[in-house]
Amino acid sequence: MRDAFHEELARTSEQLVEMTRLAGSAMARATTALLDADLPLAESVIAADEELDRMQRELDDTALDMLARQQPVATDLRIIVTGMRMSADLERMGDLARHVAKVARRRYPESAVPPELRATVLQMGQVAERIVAKAGSVIASNDVAAAVQLEQDDDEMDRLHRQVFSALLGGSWDHGIEAAVDITLVGRYYERFADHAVSVARRVVYLVTGEWHEAYVHVPSQDRTP
Amino acid sequence: MRDAFHEELARTSEQLVEMTRLAGSAMARATTALLDADLPLAESVIAADEELDRMQRELDDTALDMLARQQPVATDLRIIVTGMRMSADLERMGDLARHVAKVARRRYPESAVPPELRATVLQMGQVAERIVAKAGSVIASNDVAAAVQLEQDDDEMDRLHRQVFSALLGGSWDHGIEAAVDITLVGRYYERFADHAVSVARRVVYLVTGEWHEAYVHVPSQDRTP
Repeated sequence: MRDAFHEELARTSEQLVEMTRLAGSAMARATTALLDADLPLAESVIAADEELDRMQRELDDTALDMLARQQPVATDLRIIVTGMRMSADLERMGDLARHVAKVARRRYPESAVPPELRATVLQMGQVAERIVAKAGSVIASNDVAAAVQLEQDDDEMDRLHRQVFSALLGGSWDHGIEAAVDITLVGRYYERFADHAVSVARRVVYLVTGEWHEAYVHVPSQDRTP
Repeated sequence: MRDAFHEELARTSEQLVEMTRLAGSAMARATTALLDADLPLAESVIAADEELDRMQRELDDTALDMLARQQPVATDLRIIVTGMRMSADLERMGDLARHVAKVARRRYPESAVPPELRATVLQMGQVAERIVAKAGSVIASNDVAAAVQLEQDDDEMDRLHRQVFSALLGGSWDHGIEAAVDITLVGRYYERFADHAVSVARRVVYLVTGEWHEAYVHVPSQDRTP
């Protein structure tokens, strides 16, 4: 009985890793859709988000079921509760990729990204992919050191986010209000995506160490930075 | 023993209601700070968010403790898990009020809200206050009908959010890019605040009915609406 339970925990962990894979793929494709004004790709990202929603519901059902049937304590209890929170983060990351894809769809056949911000947005997409892939590794390996490392990717995302605001507010923006609104929202979606990846990693740290270190208590979402 | 447990559940519910009160007060004061360019008020909102963070951590500790000690099943289990999720929503609502206050602080001594949007932002603040107060009533009374009603406030928030975009994109915006960026972010913060209030209410419905109705499965966050 106990073995079946731990198998179920391992399966949960695998499914969380699969969710990081799906969220990463969604954001990577959303970025391409945004930069290339690729409507079918944007539509496919929007449609695919359903799968992440479904996985979260399934993981929630499994978690509640394990709590009720197995009456876990200590580490097992923390693994289950933390898993529920991580799946909520990952589901939300899928939403954010969908939001980026919706901006691409709304502005089609134009691209929502002005030429001078293409490199920045491309990098935001790359950092998003990298940070969620690392979150997946952290889940798979319980690697606390890697979790801490991933905060550097988040710093990089913040730096890119500041670049977006510099372009907007530097005084030479000549793409109009609609483009400014879109890029403001897009910047925020990427930055929140990274925040949630950091949150996933911090939850693994909590799981392993059993403590919220002061630095891990609260994932501050970056406000507009300048 | 069992009685002490149910007293603890009742105390959790009271603390969640208190969190709705704090989140509502924070957003109301943030709205005033934003409209009146009131720096001390903005600072007080930013500082007060710490209390919501603390309450969430405390509720989380209590919840984990109850799960470990009481090994609850069925309804009790669902109450505890749902409470953890509601406190996460409410903590996030506090963050969003803090974000609004930070916009007020950044633009001080100017107001970030142009004259023609003052009425709209004032109403967004009022709807935010109303929706979180209703979420508090729903938690206190387990009133499913009220939970459904509260969705209408969310529709009202979406309508106001569309007004913001109409003002931005109607072609007569003459407040420059910085104001456009700020109001884009502010609009999103209010709308997300309402989304989380809806989420809290839906969780109560789940608690009472034990089912995620199709309409309750997923709280879609409004993308930019036009």
